[in-house]
Amino acid sequence: MTRYKTFQTADALAYALEHTDRFAGLDSTALTSEEFGDGNLNLVFRISHPDGASLILKQALPYARCVGESWPLSVDRARIEAEAMLIESQLCPALVPEIYHYDAELAVTIMEDLSDHQILRQAMVEGKRFPTLMHDMAVFLADTLFFTSDLYLDPAEKKQRVAQFINPDLCKITEDLFFLDPYCDHERNNYYPGFNERASKLWSHTALKAEIADLKYRFLTKTQSLLHGDVHAGSIFVREGSTKVIDAEFAYYGPAGFDIGSYIGNLLLNFCAQWGLMDDEDARNNYRRWILEGIDSFWNTFADRFTGYLAENTNDPSLNNLHWQSRLMQRIWHDTLGYAGAEMIRRTVGLAHVKDLDVISDHTRQLQAAGQALVLGEALVMQRRQLDNMGDVLTMLSGLVEY
Amino acid sequence: MTRYKTFQTADALAYALEHTDRFAGLDSTALTSEEFGDGNLNLVFRISHPDGASLILKQALPYARCVGESWPLSVDRARIEAEAMLIESQLCPALVPEIYHYDAELAVTIMEDLSDHQILRQAMVEGKRFPTLMHDMAVFLADTLFFTSDLYLDPAEKKQRVAQFINPDLCKITEDLFFLDPYCDHERNNYYPGFNERASKLWSHTALKAEIADLKYRFLTKTQSLLHGDVHAGSIFVREGSTKVIDAEFAYYGPAGFDIGSYIGNLLLNFCAQWGLMDDEDARNNYRRWILEGIDSFWNTFADRFTGYLAENTNDPSLNNLHWQSRLMQRIWHDTLGYAGAEMIRRTVGLAHVKDLDVISDHTRQLQAAGQALVLGEALVMQRRQLDNMGDVLTMLSGLVEY
Repeated sequence: MTRYKTFQTADALAYALEHTDRFAGLDSTALTSEEFGDGNLNLVFRISHPDGASLILKQALPYARCVGESWPLSVDRARIEAEAMLIESQLCPALVPEIYHYDAELAVTIMEDLSDHQILRQAMVEGKRFPTLMHDMAVFLADTLFFTSDLYLDPAEKKQRVAQFINPDLCKITEDLFFLDPYCDHERNNYYPGFNERASKLWSHTALKAEIADLKYRFLTKTQSLLHGDVHAGSIFVREGSTKVIDAEFAYYGPAGFDIGSYIGNLLLNFCAQWGLMDDEDARNNYRRWILEGIDSFWNTFADRFTGYLAENTNDPSLNNLHWQSRLMQRIWHDTLGYAGAEMIRRTVGLAHVKDLDVISDHTRQLQAAGQALVLGEALVMQRRQLDNMGDVLTMLSGLVEY
Repeated sequence: MTRYKTFQTADALAYALEHTDRFAGLDSTALTSEEFGDGNLNLVFRISHPDGASLILKQALPYARCVGESWPLSVDRARIEAEAMLIESQLCPALVPEIYHYDAELAVTIMEDLSDHQILRQAMVEGKRFPTLMHDMAVFLADTLFFTSDLYLDPAEKKQRVAQFINPDLCKITEDLFFLDPYCDHERNNYYPGFNERASKLWSHTALKAEIADLKYRFLTKTQSLLHGDVHAGSIFVREGSTKVIDAEFAYYGPAGFDIGSYIGNLLLNFCAQWGLMDDEDARNNYRRWILEGIDSFWNTFADRFTGYLAENTNDPSLNNLHWQSRLMQRIWHDTLGYAGAEMIRRTVGLAHVKDLDVISDHTRQLQAAGQALVLGEALVMQRRQLDNMGDVLTMLSGLVEY
C-alpha cells in the first residue's frame, strides 16, 4: 500500500482533475476543494467549479476517527464500498450515487455530488416529509437483498461474493458497538446526564441479552444477502422525489433483516425524538403518524416486492415452495423488528448517538424521548416473535408511547 | 495448473518416493503401488513395502467419477481437504490420519495408511461393534464444530476461514444430490425395483419439501462451523479402539447439525438395513439396540462436551448467556434430526445409495428395509421441532419400525 497517503484538500483537487473528466473544458484555477466529512471513518472532499460542475472524493482513513488512531481499520473497505455500490447501482441505479473512479491503493472513490440533496436525518430533525422516500427505500432494500441472495444467484456465484465481501474490520465495529457495548459497562458508552441508571439496567437483563446474543449470532453466521450494513438515516440522501443511499463500506453478507431493521429503527428513533423536537402537539402527532404510516407502507411495499421476486425469480427449484417462502418472509420480519430494536437501544446508550436525540434542547424532554426509544427498542427485541404484522407493532407502540 | 496430470500407479509410486521419507533405507524396487479408490471423486493409491512401511496417495480428479466427466470439479478441493485435515488434526490428532505431504498443483495429498482399519460402513454391514466409536465421533464433532465457530474464534479469523473454505463445486454435489434430486423426478435418481411409487410420493409432498427447503437454505446460508461436510459411514475408518475420519474434501462453513445429522443418519440407515442383513431376530434386535443406545450415548457425549465448551471457552461476552446457549443447543439438535432424516431419504431414492441397503439379497426384505429408512427419514424431517430429546426420537422410532 505504498502509494497511500492521507489527502489534503489540494491533493484531492489535483487527483480529481487528473482522474475524471468532470471539469473538462473548465478553468481549473477556479476549482475549489473542501473537506466536510462528519463521518468517522473517511475524509470526504467536495471539488466544485463556480459553473456548477462538482464531484465528491471520498478517501478511507486507516483508523476510525471517532475512536481515534487506536482503532485501526483496513482501507480495503474502500474496495468493498466501491464494489458494493457497483452492485447496488446495477440493481437500482436511481437510488445510489454514480461512481466515476476508484483507486484501490489510495482507497479513493470519486462519485456524484449530491449537494442538491439533504441527509435524511437532518431533514427529519427539521420535520420534513418526502413522499417517495418509503417507496424508494422499499425498492432499494427488496432489490439489493433479493438479487444478491441464494434465492436468485447461482450458489457458486453467491459463495464467491461471500468471499469478496468478507469485511472483518467494519463488521467488528457493528459487532462491538451494536451488540456488545450497550449490554455491559463499557468505557466506550455514552449516556445522557441522568440516563446512567436506565442504561445500567440493560447489563443485568439476562432475557434481553439472550435475544441480543441471538441477533448477534445471526449477524455473525447468516450469509443471507449482501447487506449495505449501515442503513441509518445518515446514510440516506433525500430531496423531493429522489432518494440516494450512500456509504456502503459496511457491506457484508448477513441477515437481510439487519438492513431493514436499521432503517426502521432510525425512523422510530426520530419518532421518539419528535417528543422533544416539535413543540406543537398537533404538528408533532401529525408528523409521528406520517412516520408510522410510512413504516407501514415501507414494509408492505418491501414485502410485496420481495414476495413477488420469490414467486417469479427464485431460480433454485428446492426453494420454490410457497409454504417455506412464507416462513422465510416471517423470519425476515422478526429479524427486522429485532435489529430495529437493537439499533434503537444502542443509539441511546452506546458510543454513537443520533442527532435526532442529541439536539433536543430541553433536557427533561431529551431524557423522556431517549427513554421512549429505549423502551420501544427493548419491546421490539423481546416481543418480535409475537408481533405478526405491522398492526401488532403499532398496537404495542401505542401502549408504550403516548402520541 | 500446468503440472496437473492424472497419476498411474507408477507415477504415484515415484512421486511418493521423491516427496516423503517413509521408505528411507528400504529397497525401492520392492515397493508396490495399487489404486483402490471406490470413491467417486479421487484416485487413491496405496504404496507399500513388504517390510510393512506404507502410505496413501490421494489425487483429486477434475470431474466426478460416478457422474462422469460431464460433471467437472475443481481440484482446488484437494487444497480444501488438506487444509481442513490440518485443522482437524490440530483439534483432535488421534481421530484423523496424519498428513505427510500436500501438492496443490497436482492435487495430491500423501497421508497415513489406515489398512489396519476397516471402513465403518462395511464393518456395520458385517454387524461389528466398536466400543469407542460413539465416544470418538462425539469428540471429533464437538471439537471441530465448536473450535472453528464464532463461539470460540475471533470473528475476524473466522471470517477469513469462511473465505478459505469457500467450496462451490463440492457444495453443489450436496445441494443437488442431498436436497434437490430426491424431491423431483430427476434422471440422476436411482430406485430399487418396485420402489418408484414410494419415491414419487416425495415429489408432491409439499409440507416435506418446505422442510427440505428450510434445511437446504440453512446449508446455503449458515456459516456456523467448519464442517467436514461428508460424515457418512464410508468416511470413517475403524478398528478396535481407534476411529479415523477421512475425506474432508467437502469441508465448508455450514450448520453444525449437518455433520452430526449425516453421522446419525448413516447409523439409522444401518439400523434399517439390518432388517435384511441379519436373519437371526435376537441377534438383529440386539445389534439394533446397540445402534440406538450408541446414538443416545453419542449425542449425550457430544452435547455435554459442546455445552462444556460453551461454558468455558466462549470468548465473545455477548454469547456468554446461558439462556441463549441452551436455545443454541436445541437448534443444533433440531438441525441434526433434520439432516439425519434428509440423509436417510436421499440414500434410498437418490443417486448415491448405501451398501448397507444395496447388499441385502432378499428383494422383499430390501424393499422393506429401504421403506423403513424412508419412513424414518421423513418423520425425522417433519417432526424434528417436536422431538425434544433422544427419548422422543426413540418413542417415535418404535412407533414406526418394529424391533
